[in-house]
Amino acid sequence: MAESWVNYAERIGSDLHLELSGPGSRRAALIGALRDAVRSGRLAPGTRLPPYRSLAADLGVARNTVADAYAELVAEGWLTARQGSGTRVAERTGALQPAVRGTEPVHRPRARSARHDLRQGTPDVSGFPRSAWLASYRRALNRAPNEVFGPGDPAGRPELRAALAAYLARARGVRTEPNRIVICSGFAHALRLLFGVLLGPLAVEAYGLPFHRELLAAEGVRTVPLPLDEHGARVDRLARERAVLLTPAHQFPTGGPLHAERRAAVVDWARARGAVVLEDDYDGEFRYDRKPVGALQSLDPERVILIGSVSKSLSPAVRLGWMVLPERYVGDVLAAKGEREAWASVLDQLALADLIVSGSYDRHVRRMRQRYRSRRDRLVAALAERAPHIEVSGVAAGLHAVLRLPPGSERSAVEAAVRQGVALDGLAEFRHPDTDMPAHDGLVVGYATPSEHAYGAALEALCGALAPGGPSRV
Amino acid sequence: MAESWVNYAERIGSDLHLELSGPGSRRAALIGALRDAVRSGRLAPGTRLPPYRSLAADLGVARNTVADAYAELVAEGWLTARQGSGTRVAERTGALQPAVRGTEPVHRPRARSARHDLRQGTPDVSGFPRSAWLASYRRALNRAPNEVFGPGDPAGRPELRAALAAYLARARGVRTEPNRIVICSGFAHALRLLFGVLLGPLAVEAYGLPFHRELLAAEGVRTVPLPLDEHGARVDRLARERAVLLTPAHQFPTGGPLHAERRAAVVDWARARGAVVLEDDYDGEFRYDRKPVGALQSLDPERVILIGSVSKSLSPAVRLGWMVLPERYVGDVLAAKGEREAWASVLDQLALADLIVSGSYDRHVRRMRQRYRSRRDRLVAALAERAPHIEVSGVAAGLHAVLRLPPGSERSAVEAAVRQGVALDGLAEFRHPDTDMPAHDGLVVGYATPSEHAYGAALEALCGALAPGGPSRV
Repeated sequence: MAESWVNYAERIGSDLHLELSGPGSRRAALIGALRDAVRSGRLAPGTRLPPYRSLAADLGVARNTVADAYAELVAEGWLTARQGSGTRVAERTGALQPAVRGTEPVHRPRARSARHDLRQGTPDVSGFPRSAWLASYRRALNRAPNEVFGPGDPAGRPELRAALAAYLARARGVRTEPNRIVICSGFAHALRLLFGVLLGPLAVEAYGLPFHRELLAAEGVRTVPLPLDEHGARVDRLARERAVLLTPAHQFPTGGPLHAERRAAVVDWARARGAVVLEDDYDGEFRYDRKPVGALQSLDPERVILIGSVSKSLSPAVRLGWMVLPERYVGDVLAAKGEREAWASVLDQLALADLIVSGSYDRHVRRMRQRYRSRRDRLVAALAERAPHIEVSGVAAGLHAVLRLPPGSERSAVEAAVRQGVALDGLAEFRHPDTDMPAHDGLVVGYATPSEHAYGAALEALCGALAPGGPSRV
Repeated sequence: MAESWVNYAERIGSDLHLELSGPGSRRAALIGALRDAVRSGRLAPGTRLPPYRSLAADLGVARNTVADAYAELVAEGWLTARQGSGTRVAERTGALQPAVRGTEPVHRPRARSARHDLRQGTPDVSGFPRSAWLASYRRALNRAPNEVFGPGDPAGRPELRAALAAYLARARGVRTEPNRIVICSGFAHALRLLFGVLLGPLAVEAYGLPFHRELLAAEGVRTVPLPLDEHGARVDRLARERAVLLTPAHQFPTGGPLHAERRAAVVDWARARGAVVLEDDYDGEFRYDRKPVGALQSLDPERVILIGSVSKSLSPAVRLGWMVLPERYVGDVLAAKGEREAWASVLDQLALADLIVSGSYDRHVRRMRQRYRSRRDRLVAALAERAPHIEVSGVAAGLHAVLRLPPGSERSAVEAAVRQGVALDGLAEFRHPDTDMPAHDGLVVGYATPSEHAYGAALEALCGALAPGGPSRV
């Protein structure tokens, strides 16, 4: 049962929270930390350990270091290795200490140990528009009819669906109407619901969020990677799949938009095959240098499902997302959701509707767009000066940049960053395990993540790690 | 095939003959046949349809075919799906046209068509403590550190877990600590998560919420009914099951508490078998005539999982619930939940924590307890005067009463109520299809459901339906 502790850590792309401190070698430190975790029961018998590659990347150590540490602990009897089932904590008799868990968050533990958090995925939490949100919440609560406090419509509040239909049309070119929008608790919830309705396999981009692949795998959906080139996903490789998940506005994580011809091609494919395109519009509002790329959904609202949320624009703590559905899916999605998954807070839904309708949401997005653009500019300028050999890409939009690296140098760059106290991910973290496209080396820099006052120091540390002759080479 | 449907239809009180003939798909044939049955009135408004699984087995079609057909007909407005009561034929007066699916809520349509809503399951929505909630929300938001707006701990906010640990100890005698509490989005979410961890079959009470059984069936969990007698569930009938779901404080829906000896016995059973008791503490705060029955969980916190929510005490619109877990399950439940199911609004969590700590939650519960007690007293008095032949039971606690009826008279009583514009359910709605215990006839009256000003008229209509020689006999 306790195996899932590690699975959990793997699923969220996080590490085991092992402290590799102390004077000795990394290998010795890792062996000691793993041994302690097993001895204390934090890693329970039967628990599957992460693959070498994942743990190595998480800890910023060489893969061989992890392999050696595992081998040593297998020899000592703490772990067992069996073909096909990976490395596991050995079963033992005797008193089993239960996992000790406190009230500490178990997620993203590196954020605590690293001084500078440049991992992608989170907006600047210091930017949450507290006053505007509270004002909207108050207005919404005061205005709400009593029926708001009864059992809710699984589709979500009509106020929010109407506000989103108008907003998405204006800001993202989405063509829809309120009764084709279903409110949910975020992207993961949407994906889960859709795969109660659609049937796999699902084509995905060869680089993408491991979290999504793992979530789909947990639902029994096999993902088939599409290679990427300079025009985005090779949608010409789509074959018998019934659905494809794309990030057309800003490929995640590599950063480019899907070429116009490919946008048309994928919709044609969906029409011809009776298939559907899932459009992950995760950061469509944050575009800096050119006109926003409209939602792919507008090409064919009956063939594209757009999925969005406020996790990047406001905060992942506001658990709200939406699906914009072709008409034929509305009934099925609602049936799959039912009242049993009407999880989105109704009051938050009303507050968000007010935030949008009152214009506060637009003002907030503009303010954050300015902030992130300025951070991006500082990143580009600092690297141009301190590490001119590094190409920065994917910066026309979004909350992260990709620093392209020479082949084979990604791991050492991640390690150099870790030594400077910087937490970030290499592109390898996002690579689909089944793809055969050539690997790209690069660092994914989430420049939105630090709070405003912490960004300068994070940037300095990053440059220190990457500058030729800088501390990274010491 | 159609014969078995007729058998089923007879069991549920419908006269129906369903032909799945014709050239198209089974799904299309089923949709057509059901639509015709509704249109022609052969399936009367309010009729509950069989669970997917049963109808699929009866007709010899795939479960998904039935699910799809229902979903389609819900979308078209012929059927409705609502919590606690499965899928039903929609209530309509006049022309039988499908409801146009717009931004209207699709749930609980009877509340709109029936003049008086006495179905159980909902608190008086006019009682939501708007000012206190807003004050707590404001305080919580002002006090929140920035990290609140980042990715959340799947266990829930520590502030809320600490507040709940103290509150549940004081109000319900629960023995726990914050790090054994996991916040979720309500009872259904808790049940779903637990059955990713526990393995079925699950023993349940022979009368209970169909919604729970259907949710468990959807997760692949078989439920085994335990008969009830005057001391509550016959826990001596527990056998090889690994878990049992009980409503020990106030059996739902029949209304009595589980006898003290049975409370001890079920915990002994769990200890002896290595099993676990799930305690559905759905209305433990609303007790009128005697000292609260403490939570069963206090007998053995390592053998009982308590599940609670604010759906009855505050509102189902605040999507918050909790599990109080034995230590050995904490890690597994968190792993099953993961970041992908951290759906509970973080700001609402903080607001609820403040509401509890500030004492506002207690004040609200006391106020509502007084309101519901007075309604219960009015119900008992009115029936004693107008329909003295009816025994009212299960009224020491909770938000509903059971009106006991002579054998065989339940359906005509429900129909008499409908003719008076009263929506309510008979006990048959809650009966487990597999139980062999004798059926009890009765009406389940949710006296909390109407708003304060509407209660008198609802009561009058109910008495009109039940009074000897009253309109029900016309």
